Amino acid sequence: MKKTKTIEKNAKIVNKYLNLKLKGNPKTLYDAAAHLIIHGGKRLRPHMVIKSCQILGGDTMVAIPAASAVEMIHNFTLVHDDIMDNDEMRHGVPTVHKKFGMPIAILAGDVLFSKAYQIISDSKLSKDAKIQLVSRLAKACVDVCEGQLLDVKMAEEKRIPSQKEYITMIGKKTAALFDVSCSMGAICATSNQKDISNLSNFGRNLGIAFQITGDRIGVMGDPKMTKKPVGNDLRE
Amino acid sequence: MKKTKTIEKNAKIVNKYLNLKLKGNPKTLYDAAAHLIIHGGKRLRPHMVIKSCQILGGDTMVAIPAASAVEMIHNFTLVHDDIMDNDEMRHGVPTVHKKFGMPIAILAGDVLFSKAYQIISDSKLSKDAKIQLVSRLAKACVDVCEGQLLDVKMAEEKRIPSQKEYITMIGKKTAALFDVSCSMGAICATSNQKDISNLSNFGRNLGIAFQITGDRIGVMGDPKMTKKPVGNDLRE
Repeated sequence: MKKTKTIEKNAKIVNKYLNLKLKGNPKTLYDAAAHLIIHGGKRLRPHMVIKSCQILGGDTMVAIPAASAVEMIHNFTLVHDDIMDNDEMRHGVPTVHKKFGMPIAILAGDVLFSKAYQIISDSKLSKDAKIQLVSRLAKACVDVCEGQLLDVKMAEEKRIPSQKEYITMIGKKTAALFDVSCSMGAICATSNQKDISNLSNFGRNLGIAFQITGDRIGVMGDPKMTKKPVGNDLRE
Repeated sequence: MKKTKTIEKNAKIVNKYLNLKLKGNPKTLYDAAAHLIIHGGKRLRPHMVIKSCQILGGDTMVAIPAASAVEMIHNFTLVHDDIMDNDEMRHGVPTVHKKFGMPIAILAGDVLFSKAYQIISDSKLSKDAKIQLVSRLAKACVDVCEGQLLDVKMAEEKRIPSQKEYITMIGKKTAALFDVSCSMGAICATSNQKDISNLSNFGRNLGIAFQITGDRIGVMGDPKMTKKPVGNDLRE
């Protein structure tokens, strides 16, 4: 019960910050960029950034820009993913391209991406920390693109991937952002590379476990738990 | 004649660097990301980065990562733009989404975007320079998204924009990248903020002039010069 409260408390702080940063003109662009963020999400990745910072003695507020940047990157991937898969609903509301049209949805994803780097570079962190954050976040974004392409190709090829292929794919598609959430949190607290590396590894393994669990529920699980029809991904 | 030779010489150095950085797995992703770059482009923005660096006494090679990053961002906007406009041809070849399909084209744009930040953060520039580059580039990318949305909205509204609206739109859509090309080149050479600001302003004005000229040719000009049917944008 306590854990839920902590994640909710952290989510509130991050939501306030995101709300502040996702305002601008033209309003439609920022409405589209904020659409999924407003309508749901547990803020799991920001929570991981904040907890990783705290565990190494860092202050919560120092981690908020990095935590919000990761959430923006996560949402950027969701917006573009929904276009690629032509998904119609997410968080119980129409996807960004269904509500705003495809061109605005592409731009909404792109502006989330851009804002994430802007927030980090304009934050009050040390120069060293900022460069490490940008470097790791950019590497994670490259990994996510590679992982999503592997996912697209596997779906096209209509064959069951080997265990190694599957782990490579989810390692990039999902675990890269978990990894970078933990390592970014660590960077906000310390310059000790061993600590940063340890949290990076923890995040990666957690991300892989998270995706395996998600895929397993998608195939065998409770539709109330996933809010998606069971077996959908398998049928695809 | 000399000017053409300099831009071509700079283009060769940048092409070599881009070629090196746009290799990876899955190969399809990097083939799609490199598709437009391989098939054309004058490397005008990289040239502006390099010249701005040189004019302030900086070395050409120091400016190459920033020059290549700007070219990646420019190509990222082209790839996503072509999807939004459903354009079929660019540089005399099929657009990325026509050749590779829409999902891969979205990812190709996204990976170009990610690589641009990775190249800067992993370069050998000073920490100060890197942070300034990331901050300015992220701001420019936000501007480009905002400008593209204004462009989309103006097209939808089917009305002639006021001069002020037009200048705001091209200032963001086009001039932001010209601005950042010049200021990034300056940052590679100096920490003098006055020099950086002067080159930033020069780039912005050049970008606005460039887009006005382009739009004017599009309406009244020589189709051989634009490689597009005259009056296309106006008809749209």
